[in-house]
Amino acid sequence: MNDSAEINALIQHFLERDKYALARIITLVENDPDAARAIISRIYTHSHKSYIIGLTGSPGAGKSSLINSLTTFITSQGYTVGIISVDPSSPYTGGAFLGDRVRMRENILNSKVYIRSVASRGSTGGLAIAIYDITSVFDAFGFDFIIIETVGAGQSEVDIFQLAYTIILVTEPGLGDSVQVQKAGILEIADILVINKSDLGGDFLKVNLNMMLESYKPKSGWHPPIVRTIATEGVGAAELFQTILAHKNHLEVNGLLEEKRRHAIRTQVQNLIESILLKTMAQKFALPENMDKIMEEVCSGSKDVYTAILGFLQPILDRLDHL
Amino acid sequence: MNDSAEINALIQHFLERDKYALARIITLVENDPDAARAIISRIYTHSHKSYIIGLTGSPGAGKSSLINSLTTFITSQGYTVGIISVDPSSPYTGGAFLGDRVRMRENILNSKVYIRSVASRGSTGGLAIAIYDITSVFDAFGFDFIIIETVGAGQSEVDIFQLAYTIILVTEPGLGDSVQVQKAGILEIADILVINKSDLGGDFLKVNLNMMLESYKPKSGWHPPIVRTIATEGVGAAELFQTILAHKNHLEVNGLLEEKRRHAIRTQVQNLIESILLKTMAQKFALPENMDKIMEEVCSGSKDVYTAILGFLQPILDRLDHL
Repeated sequence: MNDSAEINALIQHFLERDKYALARIITLVENDPDAARAIISRIYTHSHKSYIIGLTGSPGAGKSSLINSLTTFITSQGYTVGIISVDPSSPYTGGAFLGDRVRMRENILNSKVYIRSVASRGSTGGLAIAIYDITSVFDAFGFDFIIIETVGAGQSEVDIFQLAYTIILVTEPGLGDSVQVQKAGILEIADILVINKSDLGGDFLKVNLNMMLESYKPKSGWHPPIVRTIATEGVGAAELFQTILAHKNHLEVNGLLEEKRRHAIRTQVQNLIESILLKTMAQKFALPENMDKIMEEVCSGSKDVYTAILGFLQPILDRLDHL
Repeated sequence: MNDSAEINALIQHFLERDKYALARIITLVENDPDAARAIISRIYTHSHKSYIIGLTGSPGAGKSSLINSLTTFITSQGYTVGIISVDPSSPYTGGAFLGDRVRMRENILNSKVYIRSVASRGSTGGLAIAIYDITSVFDAFGFDFIIIETVGAGQSEVDIFQLAYTIILVTEPGLGDSVQVQKAGILEIADILVINKSDLGGDFLKVNLNMMLESYKPKSGWHPPIVRTIATEGVGAAELFQTILAHKNHLEVNGLLEEKRRHAIRTQVQNLIESILLKTMAQKFALPENMDKIMEEVCSGSKDVYTAILGFLQPILDRLDHL
């Protein structure tokens, strides 16, 4: 894909909203950072029209089913939806994603929907950048809504959710309720709480959630509503979508959407700069090979870790200083 | 603390195992990266005698109580214990840690124990580096065991646990059992599983855990045992410690401990190099100010994000190339 005529044709098809071109571009963007920069700079829009929704919750809470029923409802209203699903495979084994695919089956053939799953990568930064890039591509493609789904809490979710305008936390009834929502502060960043599988109960969970919410200051006057759903039957999808629109309206009326967009761009810019700089330095100063030398010195006991690192870094820092 | 005579005296006291000097050095290390490097390079040992234990689990599972009872047992056997507790405050509000302090009260005045809590920081890397540094200081101080406690799963835990030789996952009986352990692959990296509060049940959880464990390949011949505890009454602490020693022995006999130590050092070296390089570049090239300019260009619509970033970065990359 170095042939610029080929890339021109691809971008042309993409701008004509061809889904195959969309898929091809995302694959390019995921696998080749240089291609990513070249292509995204040509398709990137200044409009940022897509409304970005983050959705999280414990495995088993029914996130995929909920996204399926929500997407079915949103598209029934005439809107288009791009879905980015972070593969719940751990960094240790790799994992199957087939179950979620099945739960989203209904929408895989829906012409108004495009679903992309992204594998968890080794580094937090790498995953966040992949998500930023795909979001940029989805945005340029013109989806009305982008839904980013991740599992549970953790720093990588926090990084990814810097992008989202509305964050939804999905819970399910059961003991261990408080456990589900206390995870690393997700409750504090959630704009809407969903009690899914609410045919199985949920009154106690609702009381529990409300109590926990009371201990936080409302974010800019927004009190996170609790929506009950039965995703597998489509129950509550309309109400959830109305609640998303209400939050969107709240952000717009109070000038907060623009603020969130700026914040999202700032996070993206910072991550990209750091990633490009580190990659360049790693090549320039042969980091992998020098890491081996440092390891040798430390593990043989000839130097402590800081002395070994500075023995390698100090000359580089001195040269940088004279740039 | 720029007076080198003062630092010399401090290091002298530290090497004489004075806890006040230990506390002082950790505070210095936490607040001043340059001091951290200078001091750690002088106290760093090549022996790495401390045995490092990682302990995680959902909030409410009783991690602090379990660490308290485990520590009481370990010290009763004549060993010393250093505890690093990652403050469960979210990156968004900051949170109280008093509850955990209370649960560890028994050991706060124990002369064989030192407890340090570390606040979650903005960046994953920053937190991991703080934990590496404190672990190095604890190791140099000569603790027999270091216990690192974190909440739940997520990338930052994965980074921190690169340091640990034995990883313990703490669960509690109740519905939502499978949810507790599926989080971001923690089950797959756990060497020992604890069912705490086992007076409240746990048979079903045990079956559940065993089923989930069967789907993973055992790590180098080690099948993670399940230990039942009632931490608030000290029940199971002896068995848990014996299980830790059994795992330690397994690692030693199979040459895996050395491998884990090398891996831990490698992770630490890589994080430190990246952090030092990025900090230097940020100062040298006035990153914060240039970020503002880039934001201006992108938000005004005059450039797309990639063009704006490369407009700033390309001259830097060119100069780096000619170094």
